[in-house]
Amino acid sequence: MFVAESVTIAVDVMGGDLGPAVVLGGVSQALQADPDLHVVLVGAAEAVEPFAASHDRARAQATTEVIEMAEHPANAVRTKKDSSIVVGCRLVKEGAAQGFFSAGSTGACLAAATLVVGRVKGVKRPALGQVLPAYARPCLLIDVGANADCKPEYLVQFAQMGAVYMESIMGVENPRVGLLNIGAEDTKGDEFAQRAHGLLADSVPQFAGNCEGGNLMAGDFDVVVCDGFTGNVCLKTIEGTAKTLFKYVKDALMGSLASKLGALLVKGDLSALKAKLSPETYGGTPLLGVKGAVIVGHGSSNEVAIANGIAVAATTVRANVAGVIAETVARTAAAKAASGEGEAAASDAR
Amino acid sequence: MFVAESVTIAVDVMGGDLGPAVVLGGVSQALQADPDLHVVLVGAAEAVEPFAASHDRARAQATTEVIEMAEHPANAVRTKKDSSIVVGCRLVKEGAAQGFFSAGSTGACLAAATLVVGRVKGVKRPALGQVLPAYARPCLLIDVGANADCKPEYLVQFAQMGAVYMESIMGVENPRVGLLNIGAEDTKGDEFAQRAHGLLADSVPQFAGNCEGGNLMAGDFDVVVCDGFTGNVCLKTIEGTAKTLFKYVKDALMGSLASKLGALLVKGDLSALKAKLSPETYGGTPLLGVKGAVIVGHGSSNEVAIANGIAVAATTVRANVAGVIAETVARTAAAKAASGEGEAAASDAR
Repeated sequence: MFVAESVTIAVDVMGGDLGPAVVLGGVSQALQADPDLHVVLVGAAEAVEPFAASHDRARAQATTEVIEMAEHPANAVRTKKDSSIVVGCRLVKEGAAQGFFSAGSTGACLAAATLVVGRVKGVKRPALGQVLPAYARPCLLIDVGANADCKPEYLVQFAQMGAVYMESIMGVENPRVGLLNIGAEDTKGDEFAQRAHGLLADSVPQFAGNCEGGNLMAGDFDVVVCDGFTGNVCLKTIEGTAKTLFKYVKDALMGSLASKLGALLVKGDLSALKAKLSPETYGGTPLLGVKGAVIVGHGSSNEVAIANGIAVAATTVRANVAGVIAETVARTAAAKAASGEGEAAASDAR
Repeated sequence: MFVAESVTIAVDVMGGDLGPAVVLGGVSQALQADPDLHVVLVGAAEAVEPFAASHDRARAQATTEVIEMAEHPANAVRTKKDSSIVVGCRLVKEGAAQGFFSAGSTGACLAAATLVVGRVKGVKRPALGQVLPAYARPCLLIDVGANADCKPEYLVQFAQMGAVYMESIMGVENPRVGLLNIGAEDTKGDEFAQRAHGLLADSVPQFAGNCEGGNLMAGDFDVVVCDGFTGNVCLKTIEGTAKTLFKYVKDALMGSLASKLGALLVKGDLSALKAKLSPETYGGTPLLGVKGAVIVGHGSSNEVAIANGIAVAATTVRANVAGVIAETVARTAAAKAASGEGEAAASDAR
C-alpha cells in the first residue's frame, strides 16, 4: 500500500492571471485533499500572512517583488532577488521545501529553477513537458519551449525524463516513446531528426519510432520528444486549433433552427468536453531535469488547476522523480562509457 | 471583366487513393465547369483512351508506369521515366500543357516538378503551400514539407511566393505575412527564426511579424512562413487535432440521452462543418517556385476535390503565378544588388 509521506511545497501566491485569492483558494483545496501536505506561501505579506495564520499546515514567506509575465525571464531572475519565483526556488534549494509550484511566467520559473535550484547531476538541459489530452490516453510532449535551440543528443535525455514522469506520475507502464518527425519511416526527417533517431534507437529502450504531427493527439505514444521550438509551436497549434474548432462548432450549432434546438440539448456535454481538454486537467507543466520538483501552471489557472498543480508537485516529490532521473542518466552515461571502452579495446586489438 | 483564356492542364489519372474512375469523374466535372479548359489525361491506356475519345477537350497520353506512394520519390522519378507523374511534368516542360495536377505521391510530384519542369529563375527552393481553414479567412502555410532543412534566407522567397499565391488565387489584397515562431516579440525564437525575422523585415513589405502556433488557425495572417520540417509537423498536427476533437465531440454527443437527441438535430450542421474543414475544400496544395503550375491533391481526394484541384491549376496558369513570382524575385535581387552597391559606395566614401 502506498503511504503518503509528509511533503512541503512552496507555492507562488503572486503567479497566475486571476490573482492571489484564486491561488489561495487552490492551496486550500490542495491542503484539504492531502492531509500530509504542507505549504510555504510565497508572496506579498498581506496575501500570505492571514492565510498562514489560519491554516495549521501553511507557513508564510513574505516577499516584496513580483516578476511580471512580460519581463525578460533571466534578467528578471537576476535582478529581482526578492520576487516570489526566486524565493520559492531558493526554498527548494535550501531544503525548506521539496517542490515549487507557480502559475506565473514560465520563462522566469525556468530560469530560476535552473539558476537557483540547479540541474540534476548529469542532465544537460532541463525541459518542459506538457501532458496532452490525446485520444484514449494522455501523451507527454517534451520539450515544449525550455530549449529553442537543441542538439540531437538532448532528446535522449528528454525521452528518459519524460518516460520517468509518465511512469511515476501518470502510472503508465513501459511508456512508448516517439520522436516527432515528418514521416513514419526511420530514415525520414531533417538532419536533426535523423541524428536524434539514431541516438534514441541506441540509448532508449522504450523508443518506438517516429511520431508524425497527425499521431500526436491520436494516443499512439505516451511520450513524444522534440526540440523546444517545434514542441512549443506544436503545443500552441493544438491549443489554437481546438479553440478555433470549438468556435466553428458553436457557429455550426447556430446554423439552423433544428441545430439551435439541438445545441440546447448537447450544451452540457460539450462544456464537459471543453473542460476535459483544457490545460488545467493535468495540473501544470513539469520542468524535468532540475532538482526537487518544479511545476508551472497555466497563467489562466483557476482554483482547481492550482490545487491539481500543487498535488502534482507533491506526487513528483514523493515519487522521487528527480532521483530516478538522476539514476537513469547516470546509468546511460556508465553504459556509454563502458561501450566506449569496449570499442576502444576492440579497436586496440585490431 | 475577366475573360477566361484557353488553358491546358495535364492530369495524373493514376494518382489518388480512390483510383482512376474517381479522377476521371473529377476531370469531367472540371471540364463542365470551365468551357475554356482542356486536359491531357496521363495514365494507363485503358483508363485514359476511352474517356478522351468521348470528350472534345480531352486528349490521352498513355503511360506504362506508376509511382507508388511508398516509393523513394527522387529515385522513382529518375527510374520510372514513363510514369504518369514524370510524363505529366514533361508535358508542362515541353509546352503541351501549362499546368499539372496529381493526387499521387507529394514527394514524387515535388521531385519531378523540380527535376523535369524546373525552377522559376532566381528561386532557390520551390516550396509547398497549404491553405488552412483558419477562422474567418484562409491562411497559406508555406513550406509544409518540400524542404526539411532550410536556410533562413529561403523563407524570404517562401513569403514572396505565398503572397503572390494568396493575391492571385485567393483574391487577398495586401496579404499579411507572418513568421511561425515561439513568441510574439521580434527578438523571440531560436537562432533560425531570429535570423529569418531580420531578413523578412528587410525584404518583404507585407511582413507583419511573428505568428505563434496558437494564431495559425485564428485567421490573424494570410501567409505564414516556416521551414518545411516545422510546417509539416504543424499541418499534420492541425489535421490530427481536428480529427481527435471530432471524435471527442462524437463521444460527448453520445454521453447522455439529452445529447443523443440533440445530436440528431445538429448532425447535418456538424457534417457540413467537417466538409468545410476537410483538405479538399481548397483544391490541393500548390508547389510554388516551379515553372508552370503544379498542384498536388490529397491522396484521399474525391471527385469534387479533383475538380477543385484542376480548377486551381487552371487559375494558377491564367493568373501567371509563376511569372509574377519570377518578377518579384528578380526585383528583390535587383534591390539587394543596388543596396549592396550603395553600401559599397558608402563604405568607399568613408
